[in-house]
This record gives sequence, C-alpha cells and structure tokens, in this order.
Amino acid sequence: MKILIVGAAGMIGRKLVERLAKDGVIGGVKITHADLVDIVEPAAPQGAPFATTTAAVDIAASYVAPKLIAGEPDAIFLLASIVSGEAESDFEKGYAINLDGTRGIFEAIRQRHLRTNGQYRPRVLFTSSIAVFGAPFPSVIDDEYFSTPLTSYGTQKAISELLLSDFSRRGFFDGVGIRLPTICVRPGKPNLAASGFFSNIIREPLAGQHAVLPVSEDVRHWHASPRSAVGFLIHAASLDTSRLGPRRNLTMPGVSVTVGEQIEALRKVAGEAAVSRIRREPNETIARIVAGWPSNFNAKRALGLGFNVEASFEDIIRNHIEEEHGGRIG
Amino acid sequence: MKILIVGAAGMIGRKLVERLAKDGVIGGVKITHADLVDIVEPAAPQGAPFATTTAAVDIAASYVAPKLIAGEPDAIFLLASIVSGEAESDFEKGYAINLDGTRGIFEAIRQRHLRTNGQYRPRVLFTSSIAVFGAPFPSVIDDEYFSTPLTSYGTQKAISELLLSDFSRRGFFDGVGIRLPTICVRPGKPNLAASGFFSNIIREPLAGQHAVLPVSEDVRHWHASPRSAVGFLIHAASLDTSRLGPRRNLTMPGVSVTVGEQIEALRKVAGEAAVSRIRREPNETIARIVAGWPSNFNAKRALGLGFNVEASFEDIIRNHIEEEHGGRIG
Repeated sequence: MKILIVGAAGMIGRKLVERLAKDGVIGGVKITHADLVDIVEPAAPQGAPFATTTAAVDIAASYVAPKLIAGEPDAIFLLASIVSGEAESDFEKGYAINLDGTRGIFEAIRQRHLRTNGQYRPRVLFTSSIAVFGAPFPSVIDDEYFSTPLTSYGTQKAISELLLSDFSRRGFFDGVGIRLPTICVRPGKPNLAASGFFSNIIREPLAGQHAVLPVSEDVRHWHASPRSAVGFLIHAASLDTSRLGPRRNLTMPGVSVTVGEQIEALRKVAGEAAVSRIRREPNETIARIVAGWPSNFNAKRALGLGFNVEASFEDIIRNHIEEEHGGRIG
Repeated sequence: MKILIVGAAGMIGRKLVERLAKDGVIGGVKITHADLVDIVEPAAPQGAPFATTTAAVDIAASYVAPKLIAGEPDAIFLLASIVSGEAESDFEKGYAINLDGTRGIFEAIRQRHLRTNGQYRPRVLFTSSIAVFGAPFPSVIDDEYFSTPLTSYGTQKAISELLLSDFSRRGFFDGVGIRLPTICVRPGKPNLAASGFFSNIIREPLAGQHAVLPVSEDVRHWHASPRSAVGFLIHAASLDTSRLGPRRNLTMPGVSVTVGEQIEALRKVAGEAAVSRIRREPNETIARIVAGWPSNFNAKRALGLGFNVEASFEDIIRNHIEEEHGGRIG
C-alpha cells in the first residue's frame, strides 16, 4: 500500500514515520511507498523497508492537494495544522490551513474518486482535537456531547470533522476522525503553549532540569502519550470502518489526572529528587485559559472499537523514559 | 435601522417581509430601509413604512456578498439555501450555496468590520435546521446533543452554525442561529419533498382537496407554523445577545405530535369531512426517510430566552386558517 502523511515533520508525524518504518506494514498490509510532506521538508526515515519521497508543501496553496493525491495513496494521514494559539492570533492563516487546506485535500480526493469512476476511495485519518469542545462542561464528557469550540482552531477542527463525515457518507473516501487528548509527555524543549506545563513538569525534571508549574495541583486534564497517539492513527488505518457507521469522529481514550496526580506519578517513577525540580509560579492568565479546557471523557465508543491508551499516568511517564531516555534516567 | 434579507422570495422570507412591513419596527427600532434579495427577484411589500430595494442575486458568486454588505445593514436575515433534496442530488451546488454562500456573507461582514475599525458589527440571523441532527436519536433531544447530520444539507447547516459562533465570538458580527422545526402548515401547492405530507394532510383537506398520507399514524415529528418561524427571527433580531454567551445556535421550540394527533387536531378544528379527505397510501421510501428524522426536542434554552411557539397542533391549524383562509374555512 502507498501512504501519504501530511504533517510528517511534526512531533506526531515523525513518531508515526518512525513506527511505520519499523513495522513495514499497516494492519498486515505491506507499505510499498510513503510520501512525506510538511511545510518544511520532513526527514526520510532510516532503514525503512519501503521507498520514501519527501517534500515541503503548503496545503493552503490550492495547486498542492491535487498533486499530493495524483499518486492515489491508499491511506492518507492528515496531521497538519496551525496550532491553537496561532489560529487565534492569525485568523486568516488558521482558516486557510486548518479549514481550507483540509477541505482542499478532501476535495482533491473526491475529484480523483470521480475521475476513476469511484474506484479510488482511500482511507483518510484526520487528527482532530478535544478543542472541538468548549466550556462549560459536564464533569465527564460522553461520546454524544456537542461541539461548541471556544477557539477558531477548535472551530476549524469541528468543521473538518463534519466534512470528513459527509465525504465518507457520500463514499468519496473512508475517513476516521481522531480526537486526540493533550499529548503528554511532549518531547523537545519547553514551548510557550498554554498547555506546555503539563509536559514540562515531567520532561524537565526527568532531564535534571527545573520546570515551572503555573496552575494549582487540582487542575484536571486529559492525556495520552505520543506513542498512544501513533497507535490511535495506525489502529484507525486498519479498522473495519463498517463498525463506525456514519459517525466518523471519535474521542480517543486518555488518562484523566490532576496535576497533583501527575506529580505523584513522577515521584513514584523517578523519586523525590525529580519532584523537587518543580517550581510553583502561579500564572493567572494560564490558569484562566486552562479552566476553559475539558478535563475528563468517557471514550466508550473508541474503547469498544479497540483503541488503547496507557492505564495510568505512571505508564505515560515510563513510555516517555523508554522513548526519550533509552529506558533509564538519572 | 437598515435590514437585508437574503432569501426574501422564499416562503419564510415573504412572510417575514409582510410582517416587517406591517410592524415597521424591530424591537422598537424603526426600519428605514429593507434590501430584499433572492435568486429570483423578491416582490416589494405593499404599503411598507420604509424604503425597499429588491434584486435577483446568486450568493454562490463571490462578488455578490461584498455588494450586499456595502450598505452596512444593521440586521441581516440569512434565509437562503438549497433544500435538502437538491443539496443531496447536487453536491457541488449544495456546498457552493449553503456553505460557501453563507461563509461569503460572513466574510464580507468581517471585511467591512475590519475596514471600519470594528465599528460595523451587525446582527446576523441565520436559519439553520433540525437536519443538523442525525439518527439514532434519544427520544427527546436536548440542547447539548451533538450534530451528526446524515445529509449534505445538514452538514452545511452545521458548519455554518460553527462559523456563525466563531465569527460572533471574535466580534465580527453578532449572530444568532435559529434551528427551525419543520414548518407546518406550509402554504402553496403540494410539493415532492419527503416532508411534504405533514403539511399536505392539513392544507389540502382544509381547501376541500384530497391529500395522501404515505406513513403510519404513529410517526412523530417536530413542527412550528410559518408565523412562529417569522416570530423566532424577529425575536432573535432584538434579543439581548449577552444572554447567549458563545453558544449562538438555538434549537427553536416546536410542537411534537404524531401524524395521528395531527389528524385528531384537524378533526377538532375542521370536522370529520376534512379528515375524510386524507387517503392512506403507504410509501416505504418516504417512511424510511422520515424514520431518520428527529421527532422531539426539549428546547429549554430557547424557551428561557423568550422564543415562543404554538401551544398545540390545533393552534398551528388555526394560524394557518387565519393566514391563508382569512380566518374561516368551508
């Protein structure tokens, strides 16, 4: 099978490519070619058992999508988006990439579908977000809760979900929308995203560095590891979609913990020394933003469809240590 | 105040124009000018206390929206859309008008807002539909139930709702989305819409004509009169939107009755002779389509915000007799 990954240079994109290069298959079917694109040219994976091509493209440019689809990839991973903060500060860019860029790819697939008299009908895996939900929330959000996003980013994701469902229902492609939890522990450097501290307070202490905690310990949030995110995408790529019916967008399972429970898990896995590297510096702006985020879900449907996540936040930390520290710290 | 009505030649558009011509005000504020547009040129109202202009325009053409907004109307009624059946049979046209046409107007308002340094910020009243919901449903759909439309029309309405919320949240305009029940009794000739029989079985017998009932009497559905639909729009135009917060789309109140209860109401209002003009001709295709439609809602939020509907289906019939038969039949 031929695959296309749009957004292959991002954090999840790179980990997905790495995993596919190791597996060589999706759902038992051999990958023959991977086309990896992003706004910057993605790195080709080392020692992959399939051919790869890489390119820097901007999906906001209307000529791009038809070119990406011309090779008729069997599975298309759509991971590209402008992040929440940028979509809020740059309204036009957010809509151009997160909505029109996504729709442009959906539309290019539809055109190819029509041109091949319906023979071309790829699997499409789209990463959505829990940002499609907006406060106030019930204490646990179930699979039938409505989307009332409070950001343009969340709006663009919710609209893309609706398009994905309609294009799938019409038979143009076979789509699955994957509503990701907050990904934790994010590897790399601390960033300025309001959600950054959820990862910073684990990653930095494990690396012997100090980290800042800007909110109180009773803040609850919904997490999954980068490894689980990749697992969701691969599971969705080989899922029997007849089990989905027309409701194509799924809230992924996650681990709901308070910041205090995150710190407790860090203590258990890495000891008091690690925990002592967390500095409390309350920040009202961040606290206010975070208060508008959902904190707990009942992801019953996705669990029933075989999507898996870590059993505890300790497991999330252990996965991080395995992937980023070769299995050992300190 | 200046108003713009897009879709002024449609059934609800005509009744809205008629009502505004009679009232001369919205929420106590005098209407000075009404710009009435539709795909066919709307009729100017007789004896309106304000100036009117009329034009035939196609909102799918990108040059149209900026022209409509150039006069900076204070209230904009967006009633135009391709109906469900046509949006399903003509995919491109449905998206071009129901999604891109609506978005084009939203975007033209935003451009005007920016050009006036934020001074221009009109009220936008958008007619959405219960088609944003898709089966299977709970027996009563509440205000927080999710949108999983099973038609392209419903998808286009759900997306427009999300855009309306985001553009309102960003302050470009002050929007209210009005999710209309099925409008009953529709005046005019019987049409081929799958929902047509809900009106036909009342309107035709009242006019001394036979009507066909293609489904069983236990089919339940959600109705409001054309008069209520106009009332929803006018109420939304003068509503204190600070009471809405960021959740801008409202399921309107309606009357939930079975077909049997519709017939019983007809009997009470117009007698056995009228009822005897209904012929039962079961049609499995129509029965299957109708089975996918929502039948009952708890429109708590809209009721709390002062939106009103008939208390019973008998009242809906009486309104029809008042408006279409000058108050008396037979």
